[in-house]
Amino acid sequence: MKTIGIVLKPDHPKGKAVLEKLIPWLQQQGKEALMIDVAKKTIPRSLDMLIVLGGDGTLLSAARLVEALDIPILGVNLGSLGFLTEVTLDELYPTLEKIFKNQYVLDPRLMLKSFIRRGGKEIPQPRVLNDIVVGHGTLAKLIKLEITINNQFVTALRADGLIIATATGSTAYSLSSGGPIVHPSVDAVILTPISPHMLTNRPIIIPSSVAVDVVLKTAEKGPHVTVDGQEIFPLEENDIVHIEASERRLKLIQSPHRNYYQVLRQKLKWGEG
Amino acid sequence: MKTIGIVLKPDHPKGKAVLEKLIPWLQQQGKEALMIDVAKKTIPRSLDMLIVLGGDGTLLSAARLVEALDIPILGVNLGSLGFLTEVTLDELYPTLEKIFKNQYVLDPRLMLKSFIRRGGKEIPQPRVLNDIVVGHGTLAKLIKLEITINNQFVTALRADGLIIATATGSTAYSLSSGGPIVHPSVDAVILTPISPHMLTNRPIIIPSSVAVDVVLKTAEKGPHVTVDGQEIFPLEENDIVHIEASERRLKLIQSPHRNYYQVLRQKLKWGEG
Amino acid sequence: MKTIGIVLKPDHPKGKAVLEKLIPWLQQQGKEALMIDVAKKTIPRSLDMLIVLGGDGTLLSAARLVEALDIPILGVNLGSLGFLTEVTLDELYPTLEKIFKNQYVLDPRLMLKSFIRRGGKEIPQPRVLNDIVVGHGTLAKLIKLEITINNQFVTALRADGLIIATATGSTAYSLSSGGPIVHPSVDAVILTPISPHMLTNRPIIIPSSVAVDVVLKTAEKGPHVTVDGQEIFPLEENDIVHIEASERRLKLIQSPHRNYYQVLRQKLKWGEG
Amino acid sequence: MKTIGIVLKPDHPKGKAVLEKLIPWLQQQGKEALMIDVAKKTIPRSLDMLIVLGGDGTLLSAARLVEALDIPILGVNLGSLGFLTEVTLDELYPTLEKIFKNQYVLDPRLMLKSFIRRGGKEIPQPRVLNDIVVGHGTLAKLIKLEITINNQFVTALRADGLIIATATGSTAYSLSSGGPIVHPSVDAVILTPISPHMLTNRPIIIPSSVAVDVVLKTAEKGPHVTVDGQEIFPLEENDIVHIEASERRLKLIQSPHRNYYQVLRQKLKWGEG
Repeated sequence: MKTIGIVLKPDHPKGKAVLEKLIPWLQQQGKEALMIDVAKKTIPRSLDMLIVLGGDGTLLSAARLVEALDIPILGVNLGSLGFLTEVTLDELYPTLEKIFKNQYVLDPRLMLKSFIRRGGKEIPQPRVLNDIVVGHGTLAKLIKLEITINNQFVTALRADGLIIATATGSTAYSLSSGGPIVHPSVDAVILTPISPHMLTNRPIIIPSSVAVDVVLKTAEKGPHVTVDGQEIFPLEENDIVHIEASERRLKLIQSPHRNYYQVLRQKLKWGEG
Repeated sequence: MKTIGIVLKPDHPKGKAVLEKLIPWLQQQGKEALMIDVAKKTIPRSLDMLIVLGGDGTLLSAARLVEALDIPILGVNLGSLGFLTEVTLDELYPTLEKIFKNQYVLDPRLMLKSFIRRGGKEIPQPRVLNDIVVGHGTLAKLIKLEITINNQFVTALRADGLIIATATGSTAYSLSSGGPIVHPSVDAVILTPISPHMLTNRPIIIPSSVAVDVVLKTAEKGPHVTVDGQEIFPLEENDIVHIEASERRLKLIQSPHRNYYQVLRQKLKWGEG
Repeated sequence: MKTIGIVLKPDHPKGKAVLEKLIPWLQQQGKEALMIDVAKKTIPRSLDMLIVLGGDGTLLSAARLVEALDIPILGVNLGSLGFLTEVTLDELYPTLEKIFKNQYVLDPRLMLKSFIRRGGKEIPQPRVLNDIVVGHGTLAKLIKLEITINNQFVTALRADGLIIATATGSTAYSLSSGGPIVHPSVDAVILTPISPHMLTNRPIIIPSSVAVDVVLKTAEKGPHVTVDGQEIFPLEENDIVHIEASERRLKLIQSPHRNYYQVLRQKLKWGEG
Repeated sequence: MKTIGIVLKPDHPKGKAVLEKLIPWLQQQGKEALMIDVAKKTIPRSLDMLIVLGGDGTLLSAARLVEALDIPILGVNLGSLGFLTEVTLDELYPTLEKIFKNQYVLDPRLMLKSFIRRGGKEIPQPRVLNDIVVGHGTLAKLIKLEITINNQFVTALRADGLIIATATGSTAYSLSSGGPIVHPSVDAVILTPISPHMLTNRPIIIPSSVAVDVVLKTAEKGPHVTVDGQEIFPLEENDIVHIEASERRLKLIQSPHRNYYQVLRQKLKWGEG
């Protein structure tokens, strides 16, 4: 590992101080440190690793950049523990020392790719690490969706929306909407309806090998697709949102300091009371 | 009962045929029949009763009109059974005959009134029979709300939104978002969070005698209030949505043909399987 | 207030030390202090107040004793905050001083009474402050119940059981089984099915003025009634469990130090994260 | 396929009539028909196929018999559609004709094996197709469990119990207790807590390749293990229930008449309303 990219959450109060220590330290280790601006949506192919300093949201943005390039990514939280940014600032230097000695474990994470089929055209969407949401518009109103999996009709859904999540995304929006916790090594996709009109429309877990088509059957303006809670694309009636597994996995570097269940316990406060 | 208002769901395929039979029949009974256009938002004070032909949505609109005037309202569904439109077309004439013989029961239903406090001003909102929803905007994103009941701080909430529902509204949007079924004779208001970030933010039932204040703590554009799923008002940061019971109850005429639990069983398909 | 009863949770490690300080202090205030043994199921009528030292379980037992006698009850937790034992040991003496100066608020709490109708007989059950549970037996198997409210048939239920809870009990077993939080001043009873076979069998809130009948339609041995999680009575096929509001309310003394929502926030960890 | 076993649900009213037609028909096709008594818990190794006539419960019993022998199994419901008995009586003969022409698809289904470690001993339990439940006893009372996955501590759980289910079992007891629907081709195990005291103890989906250990930390009598809702084994404090995937899959013969989502739609009534 020679060239290390750094993504910093914009305007973070601790950010400057962290960089003033991290960059010289990396140089002392004989590394080249490159600041990466996520907003520019490009990243040098030459990076050997990307350090993300921020929260889970910052890491989601960075994941879209490195996904095509097979660059390992390390998430470091600048405040409270994240599901994706498990390394604390205290642990940053010991963790990097281990990584530079090749003592680390990569945790391959499923990403989803999608496009919108409108008329004869396919409009590609950014890849996601957490979830694709087909949601209603401003007026708090049901939308109608038709869900098909591998060309088998599943159900018509009237709901606030539908979350199509990875296991990684299972602890984010999907959990708030009643979805289960899915361990990242389960090769599956989660379909979680948001406030479904029909109470039996429960979350469904399907293999990641299948293709999901979601057709919008609502004519009014407002429905849209949101990718990883960050980018938005307005939908029209009869648009088909087509989702399948990305051919590449994100190479997330595991924290040597805590395992998946430790993070769950801390985030969901299982340890207490 | 002399003057009978009729509200018809716009553009309903059965509508014309129903009216062509209903109006002459009412006249034969010695009644005056008046068509009411809900969109005009006014209604003659002289009405003795209002017949609503449509679904629950049509009745919600009509409820806002009659609420101040103490006019009893009869809900007749033109298709599938509604929670508020329990009378079927088959049952319409026998039901009216009973009503005209004074053989009917009024079911008083709690309505909610609300205003938005912005700076020094109070911006009044239409009264609701079902629910007031403080919801997020187009980008599927958490909003932050602070909830206070009778000046006691309850909780800060990060969620897609908050539903403040009557017992009548408990079987509508609130039920889809995880709220309980509340019998209309329970004097209570239901606060149901929509996809809350914190899993312990569960629905809360409070007495209808209290006042609820919901403060929006999100700066971005998009959050709004929706009343009975029909009218919408955009919110700004620090707006306070103030909700309390209306001083008047809606006078809903009970169907002589089925009680509350029969409607529940049919709508929720408890009878089968 | 002259005669003060004291109930102590059996075998509590802190118990002896607390009593060695509390009893002399009460005598200094000119009060008579009487130790009450909950297991004996009797209590002197002459008590002016009952102090319960323990957890919510201890208070539930004590509530069954004082219920008929109109004696105010103060819950003091010996460890972690309870929903019913809101006063901490630190707060005990200042709270008692306020009470003896008549500076306190009584919080009347609904209790439920019930009997089992078997053949021609009625077998009375102890009154409850939290809940009556009709539950399955040892083999984890559905039981079949028929629920009737004020002689109106509600639903047949196949489930692990049914919880009939007060608002006070809404934050106990009912909450774990998907029920809502109900403020103690709402005059209602909560019916919460436990793991119902039919997903649309959701919790129902009904007025406390009604009578609920639950008929057991399962022939195998095992089903039973549990009152406040503490006493158990085996049921037979066609037994009817009849539940209604007790005519008396429990006189719970409010803590002057925290309101209902503060307790909720602390117990459900709303304040954090 | 030469020798066909038949399991019939005991005492089913339609049973005799079905057999009187099925057995001669099989003989006409040149097959040998053998009645199998599930209660005897043995089955001839020579069977080429097993037809189960009954409901899902009957098939669960039969699955335990054929599991070790690699015999394909066809589920035929005698009444209402089952998740495992998808073939109706009407479809039975056309389905068998296809099977005998080798026109059928096997649906391999994960089964779970388990044993209880008590002191130094391992007490083996029957294999399951749906679920293993660690449940509380008669008194409706929380039990305390400690869950470990592949020797990583997951959580202490206070609940009515814990369901460890396959994807096949996801639509049975687990669904009633809040678990998701998991497609049978997802290689996963579902841990669904039953009425957990801590609201954040939500269902967890883990890979089927792992081993789960559940330790009972409750001293009172009553807790037990139930396998596929049919056999029961009493537990003692500190017993460890060890669960992992069986090395063999059940060979379920797919109905040629309906796919998985069609069964879901019909059972959960998604098609209607």
